[in-house]
Amino acid sequence: MMEKERLEKQFAFIREVDKEKFIGRQTYLSDGVRKENDAEHAWHMALMTILLSEYANEEIDVLKTVTMLLIHDLVEIDAGDTYAYDAEGNKTKEQREKKAADRIYGLLPEDQQEKLRKLWDEFEEWKSPEARFAHAMDCIQPLMLNAATEGKSWEEHGVHLSQVLGRNGRTSEGSQALWQYAYENFITPNAEKGRLKD
Amino acid sequence: MMEKERLEKQFAFIREVDKEKFIGRQTYLSDGVRKENDAEHAWHMALMTILLSEYANEEIDVLKTVTMLLIHDLVEIDAGDTYAYDAEGNKTKEQREKKAADRIYGLLPEDQQEKLRKLWDEFEEWKSPEARFAHAMDCIQPLMLNAATEGKSWEEHGVHLSQVLGRNGRTSEGSQALWQYAYENFITPNAEKGRLKD
Repeated sequence: MMEKERLEKQFAFIREVDKEKFIGRQTYLSDGVRKENDAEHAWHMALMTILLSEYANEEIDVLKTVTMLLIHDLVEIDAGDTYAYDAEGNKTKEQREKKAADRIYGLLPEDQQEKLRKLWDEFEEWKSPEARFAHAMDCIQPLMLNAATEGKSWEEHGVHLSQVLGRNGRTSEGSQALWQYAYENFITPNAEKGRLKD
Repeated sequence: MMEKERLEKQFAFIREVDKEKFIGRQTYLSDGVRKENDAEHAWHMALMTILLSEYANEEIDVLKTVTMLLIHDLVEIDAGDTYAYDAEGNKTKEQREKKAADRIYGLLPEDQQEKLRKLWDEFEEWKSPEARFAHAMDCIQPLMLNAATEGKSWEEHGVHLSQVLGRNGRTSEGSQALWQYAYENFITPNAEKGRLKD
């Protein structure tokens, strides 16, 4: 492929993924007013990974984990964000997201398409230390923000402690130390104050 | 330091940097309606670096460059965003940003404080292949969005072609190939259509 053609494809993808900035999540930012979007969430987790990789249960490749986190929500440009506690939406999530991955990664030159798609599949299937650590970040980052806003999003959605624990059933597979910290500092105090039901 | 104390410091920083999501920039997102914030900008450039590192003039350490870009605007939490073409603001920018760096990086455990501060200094001083490539990303990402929105931000601020070329005087030091692509595809067409003055 000519360099110009390759660059056209890369920039078509780079321009398209700008739309990730419009995909809203349910988590409030630390001001408790505006909710986070997918790009902000990914940025935050990438930086967290760089700072917290020392707590991974197994040694991780930091760049690989960061890349995984930077791209893992791109499918939501087409498939939308499915709230963690939306049982109906979660039934069709996989199918919607696979279709989105085909289209969005398909904009890239073939080698990069394959590389990123493989990383996304690896994340979805929890099949490496990097995927497990990335999932820990994906769960702990909103726990941290929920705690920073005194459980505002949890209260709004009437979330139960059992739901949070269910959602975090595998967080410790990425990092036992970070899960323990999050459980003690982000979850327990909010359960005790009744911001999480049960 | 006990692990608990170290984690407290790391999460104090992680919670503090959430504020980067509130720092607005002058660049419009691809919808031409909302303007970008610093966290979104950093996410976009980190992903661009992973995809475009092959075009760096000199070989770069991708993780180092990505880290640099993820953190390079944190100082704006205290110092605010200084628009590229704001001559007055740019006079006091350095002093304001150094003070901010002391406070914000100072939240971290000492080893990470030093590591990140060193990376930020390196970026500010353009003193490595990674710093030069990061600056190329920092210039090309808004050029790409300005082109995607038909020069909306340039027109609003009455920006001249000479200002854009001045601002990009060193972009080619990071990547000759990407600067050429940006010049031909993002700048020239908008100058020809009168969206950039001169």
